[in-house]
Amino acid sequence: MKASILTIGDEILIGQVVNTNSSWLSKKLNDIGITVNTVLAIGDNKSQITNSLDILLPHSDIILITGGLGPTNDDITKDVLAEYFNTKLIYDELVYKNIENIFEKTNSTINKNNMRQAYVPENAQILMNKYGTAPGMLFKKNEKFIFSLPGVPIEMQYIFETHIVPFLTENFVQSKITHKTFIIIGIPESILAEKIEDWENNLPYYIKVAYLPNYGYIRLRLSIYDSDEEKNNILKQKTEDLKNIVSDNLISEEDISLEELLGKMLKDNQKTVATAESCTGGKIASLITSIPKSSSYFVGSIVSYSNNVKTNILNVNKTDIEKYGAVSQTVVEQMAIGILKLLKTDYSIATSGIAGPDGGTKEKPVGTIWIAVASKDKIISREYHFSSDRNINILRSAYTGINMLIKLIKNN
Amino acid sequence: MKASILTIGDEILIGQVVNTNSSWLSKKLNDIGITVNTVLAIGDNKSQITNSLDILLPHSDIILITGGLGPTNDDITKDVLAEYFNTKLIYDELVYKNIENIFEKTNSTINKNNMRQAYVPENAQILMNKYGTAPGMLFKKNEKFIFSLPGVPIEMQYIFETHIVPFLTENFVQSKITHKTFIIIGIPESILAEKIEDWENNLPYYIKVAYLPNYGYIRLRLSIYDSDEEKNNILKQKTEDLKNIVSDNLISEEDISLEELLGKMLKDNQKTVATAESCTGGKIASLITSIPKSSSYFVGSIVSYSNNVKTNILNVNKTDIEKYGAVSQTVVEQMAIGILKLLKTDYSIATSGIAGPDGGTKEKPVGTIWIAVASKDKIISREYHFSSDRNINILRSAYTGINMLIKLIKNN
Repeated sequence: MKASILTIGDEILIGQVVNTNSSWLSKKLNDIGITVNTVLAIGDNKSQITNSLDILLPHSDIILITGGLGPTNDDITKDVLAEYFNTKLIYDELVYKNIENIFEKTNSTINKNNMRQAYVPENAQILMNKYGTAPGMLFKKNEKFIFSLPGVPIEMQYIFETHIVPFLTENFVQSKITHKTFIIIGIPESILAEKIEDWENNLPYYIKVAYLPNYGYIRLRLSIYDSDEEKNNILKQKTEDLKNIVSDNLISEEDISLEELLGKMLKDNQKTVATAESCTGGKIASLITSIPKSSSYFVGSIVSYSNNVKTNILNVNKTDIEKYGAVSQTVVEQMAIGILKLLKTDYSIATSGIAGPDGGTKEKPVGTIWIAVASKDKIISREYHFSSDRNINILRSAYTGINMLIKLIKNN
Repeated sequence: MKASILTIGDEILIGQVVNTNSSWLSKKLNDIGITVNTVLAIGDNKSQITNSLDILLPHSDIILITGGLGPTNDDITKDVLAEYFNTKLIYDELVYKNIENIFEKTNSTINKNNMRQAYVPENAQILMNKYGTAPGMLFKKNEKFIFSLPGVPIEMQYIFETHIVPFLTENFVQSKITHKTFIIIGIPESILAEKIEDWENNLPYYIKVAYLPNYGYIRLRLSIYDSDEEKNNILKQKTEDLKNIVSDNLISEEDISLEELLGKMLKDNQKTVATAESCTGGKIASLITSIPKSSSYFVGSIVSYSNNVKTNILNVNKTDIEKYGAVSQTVVEQMAIGILKLLKTDYSIATSGIAGPDGGTKEKPVGTIWIAVASKDKIISREYHFSSDRNINILRSAYTGINMLIKLIKNN
């Protein structure tokens, strides 16, 4: 079972919109054991649409098309597909009723553009759309299935979950996909590769390994694209071997972000955290609070860009700032302790550094960052030398701080 | 000039990663007048890579490939391209020196995986990568140009900006491009389109208009892709007409982000700002401090996720929180005044809302956000109803807060 995804819409090609529909669909198809081998994005253009179908059909059992089903003149997908599959548009009473229902809810009147949407290809199976006026469609050709879906995410997702998932799971015996992801920190990609080289070389052919590096951590993914019980048992053995090799750097066997992982650890232990941020400027707080329900463990943050905030609110010693500078071990540790006491949390993260591009000196060049993490009875601080790029320094410092706290909690 | 983008990497096809590289590249190519007609994503698979090139080459003048250049075994792009373009890999001293430099900074030792990266296709032009060990490459075939770039965004972006943009503008973009961008706030895209419809219909054919909506603001871009003095003079007249029509909502004629614009206004007026953030969780501080030299006008921030932080540090009245709730006009105004006094700044921004997905009630559903901006003698607050998506609510609140402060400063 091989699938392709075809996204239609000029907005993708001029970079105005990020193609999140195709990543959502890819994930969902993988979950039910269908491999996506191509994701293609093209403009609202007739010859591009037909050419793409010519190219994709020989290599795909199913094709999922999104976009171009709206009511305006630039939406041409339905007409092009009707022509491509040798059929004509006919009026569909049920689709019209659905449009009527939607307009009733918003108290608007149906205009002729929307009336056009009640006409559907005669040989297509209609997939009703609860959230919008454009229905989904299913075309069949030479044992292949071509789905056309609206580009609005909520409508596309509704039709996929309600109509397409049951159809696919009922009608096809899919090969089963197994993924296993490890989160690894504190080691560069090339060193990790070296460390697990022998292990990797001894894997059976059906276990694929992928390295997915991020700021400060690597997601290492093992996949079987055609799994059965025997293969899964071998995978289990192999993951145990892997865990022994990378145990020092392994922080999770779940495929989640560091901020999610930190949140889970804090929630599970009913602990709280706060941050005192200088060079990261609120980035750590922002990452932590991007996770739903973070209010149950995140208390707050002081972004102390000026030294006055460090001394007046975080209670950092003024003489120490004068003596050692704001970017120093003693200041960052006092910040971590200051915020822990001020907001009465179990843990804290503090940063002070020179993000750049200005402010560097010979002794403390741009990229010099001090980070501290603290609990009530422990404090760990470290100096880092990152890059010359401001936003990389901010991101790496933020993720490194979160990393350090994850380690501290783990070792507690 | 037609371009295609080819993204290589299994992570895109299983939906683990959203394809932001291709939207970034599409946008940048459009900015310099190059049209992208296809964006294709495939796996780390030899036959898929060669098939894709066979398909894309006839329809493209340039192809930008991203991904698959890392040091590990799953990275096969370089080998496949060398074979496809009939060449072999040779050792490159400059690439090796660059790898050495990068390893020196991080105090690690080069292993044989990284050594592999110093071997490059003999007939490719090398595009040095300041931020990583994998260089970019340029292949030429039948008047077509094929660029291969690493998938790590910062590395890809660096190579694109440093090597590819100058190459393309020198060799390809013979026509002169003029862009003029306006930043417009406080008006939805459809209303703006209606407002300027007559003006737009009377533009000469060579002035193209693009609406680039963002969270809370719209970049309206006028472009001439084949400009000369006469056309540029007409553009000047037309922009004057436009300014008269949208004057109420026009906040900048420079193509800069809102956080940059706010920074400029504060620096020019030698004023300072601080933020008190509840639902935005540090996002506003993080946006403001992403701008170099922001320390000259940004003093700090209190992220008050818990009510205790609001009362104890920001001096919000406890009874008011109990009576009106944390998400209320009086609380957000007290937060704005509290931070202004505490950090002694000229201006402040405060937010309090229900970002979701939990925490909504019938009276205050998810997406209900109060935002206040204050100066020493003025305070403006407003209630907003955004979406049901947490991260959209955070971003829209952050940009709306920055917007509101820009307006307050402008009207002062």
